[in-house]
Amino acid sequence: MRLSTNMVENKITLSHGSGLQATKKLIQEIFLKHLGDEILLSLQDSAIINVEKEKLAFTIDSYTVNPLFFPSSDIGKLAIYGTINDLAVMGAKPMFISLGFIIEEGLDIATLEKIAISIKEAKNRAKVEIVAGDTKVVEKGKCDGVYITSSGIGVQILDSFPFLNSIVPGDKVIINGTIGEHELAVLLARGEFKFQADIRSDCQPLWEIIEKLLHNCPGIKFMRDATRGGIGGVLNELAEQINYGIQIYEDKIPVREEVKGICDILGFDYLFLANEGKFIAIVEESQAQKVIEIMKDSGYPLASIIGEVRKEFSQKVKLQTIKGGDRILDFPYGSQFPRIC
Amino acid sequence: MRLSTNMVENKITLSHGSGLQATKKLIQEIFLKHLGDEILLSLQDSAIINVEKEKLAFTIDSYTVNPLFFPSSDIGKLAIYGTINDLAVMGAKPMFISLGFIIEEGLDIATLEKIAISIKEAKNRAKVEIVAGDTKVVEKGKCDGVYITSSGIGVQILDSFPFLNSIVPGDKVIINGTIGEHELAVLLARGEFKFQADIRSDCQPLWEIIEKLLHNCPGIKFMRDATRGGIGGVLNELAEQINYGIQIYEDKIPVREEVKGICDILGFDYLFLANEGKFIAIVEESQAQKVIEIMKDSGYPLASIIGEVRKEFSQKVKLQTIKGGDRILDFPYGSQFPRIC
Repeated sequence: MRLSTNMVENKITLSHGSGLQATKKLIQEIFLKHLGDEILLSLQDSAIINVEKEKLAFTIDSYTVNPLFFPSSDIGKLAIYGTINDLAVMGAKPMFISLGFIIEEGLDIATLEKIAISIKEAKNRAKVEIVAGDTKVVEKGKCDGVYITSSGIGVQILDSFPFLNSIVPGDKVIINGTIGEHELAVLLARGEFKFQADIRSDCQPLWEIIEKLLHNCPGIKFMRDATRGGIGGVLNELAEQINYGIQIYEDKIPVREEVKGICDILGFDYLFLANEGKFIAIVEESQAQKVIEIMKDSGYPLASIIGEVRKEFSQKVKLQTIKGGDRILDFPYGSQFPRIC
Repeated sequence: MRLSTNMVENKITLSHGSGLQATKKLIQEIFLKHLGDEILLSLQDSAIINVEKEKLAFTIDSYTVNPLFFPSSDIGKLAIYGTINDLAVMGAKPMFISLGFIIEEGLDIATLEKIAISIKEAKNRAKVEIVAGDTKVVEKGKCDGVYITSSGIGVQILDSFPFLNSIVPGDKVIINGTIGEHELAVLLARGEFKFQADIRSDCQPLWEIIEKLLHNCPGIKFMRDATRGGIGGVLNELAEQINYGIQIYEDKIPVREEVKGICDILGFDYLFLANEGKFIAIVEESQAQKVIEIMKDSGYPLASIIGEVRKEFSQKVKLQTIKGGDRILDFPYGSQFPRIC
């Protein structure tokens, strides 16, 4: 595509980052075109938003995924759903998003447009508004196509959530489905491996299921989406904060055979692989089954209780393996995998 | 400096972006250390904030300046003041900031720490809280040291500001001081020119003066900080929105002789150079002098009325040159200068 009759290039140039006519055209012909009236990218310096309640959640995340497109998702959807999910796990209804684009000189305009369309679909599905934006262009070789930083505001529907202080031994650890797919899908799409596999990113917005759970299950004490660092990372961080131990059972953790297979071959631990549509919930024992039922009724058939909070091994996570062995699930220093985000 | 006895590197590695122990250490030993309890970088997925009023301003900006440090300022201060100023010109008191860092593998940890300290000074001076953050690390050569995206929330103290519809011919165009220094300071610091000059960035927070003006001068109808694209960009965008023309007078525009000199030599137009502490205000004629007096009393001795809104040349900006000529101030397509942000 071409930006306009005046704009003969079909690639991003440094002029698109000048703040002058070229920037304006880029914004109008790519972002405003697809994201509609809601997005005020550069037209105002800030968006003015109305909020009904006083407790807001505020978050930010930078998305640097490579490749920009991968099975079932792309950087645009990630930038919306990832930020929405960060609000959702704080018990906050996602409302407003602002997006900062850092774009590499030479990027195909068509690629940027494809991302804008994907963002539009994601914001419509998740019912959030994109109210502010910014675009910068950096020289070829100083970015990886495009980086998107996404900031979100949500209205907290459950005051003071999460209830970390009320977590006690016996509380159950729940996951809403299979793990490890997002990270492997990205690595596969990048051609990191010498084999192919049909693994798709699980990237999806979680507010709908979380809202249902919060309305029906007051026994939910904590939630966290298991993105970078995986469920191993989330559980280790949680254990440190609550001063109890967390026991999980390998045979209860839902994971696709293909994911297990690739992890076996490459020596990866799927517990530390990034997900983009999975969250850990800590739930009072008496409500754990109800949480599972609601999840299963809401499109998460593989939701499972995978462990529980324990008095023992304070601040540590212990894994009972399928073979019956018990081991502390170390919190690795760095990633075993190539960077995906 | 070293991150800890366990962390023998003094450079950023990809592990610092893994979301695992290394990321946590980096956050604790650089960001938490300097930015204190307020910053929740990665400890929670979102910050919960309390707001007293319902009209909020919400903004985002990515900072990609090179070099990271330049006379009188650096990327850290820019990321705070730039975002604060975007809120301020919307009549909103800056309250909360969230920061997304994209860091290049191999960056000196000491550099990152210097930036964190600078951010701390800036947030203290501007009395805002940093409540959320995110860090990503990308491979060497896929960033330019560090990029910071800063998102801000402010509480609007003047409902429905700016009052674009009430702008009428006769309204005065005011600037709070000399222009062009920020962009030249950055270009000089980068060694783009074969000569030296003592030009410093004007990077500073504008909320204090703007708050005073809004409380005392109800005749202020519009404000905009003249960053990327300069005052030429701001006035051209404004003229398009109000359907009137804007006349400015070259001899009224405050600009340092050194800036003029460099622009003369290099053929730059200082009207389109980026500033980081200057804003344009459109003010009812009867209050223009009062605005100037308040500015002069508040540390802006060179504040000036530089033009007025006109019925003629609708949607255009006209410059009367020192020699008495009149010309339309074209809105350039792209920048004449190397990228600085």
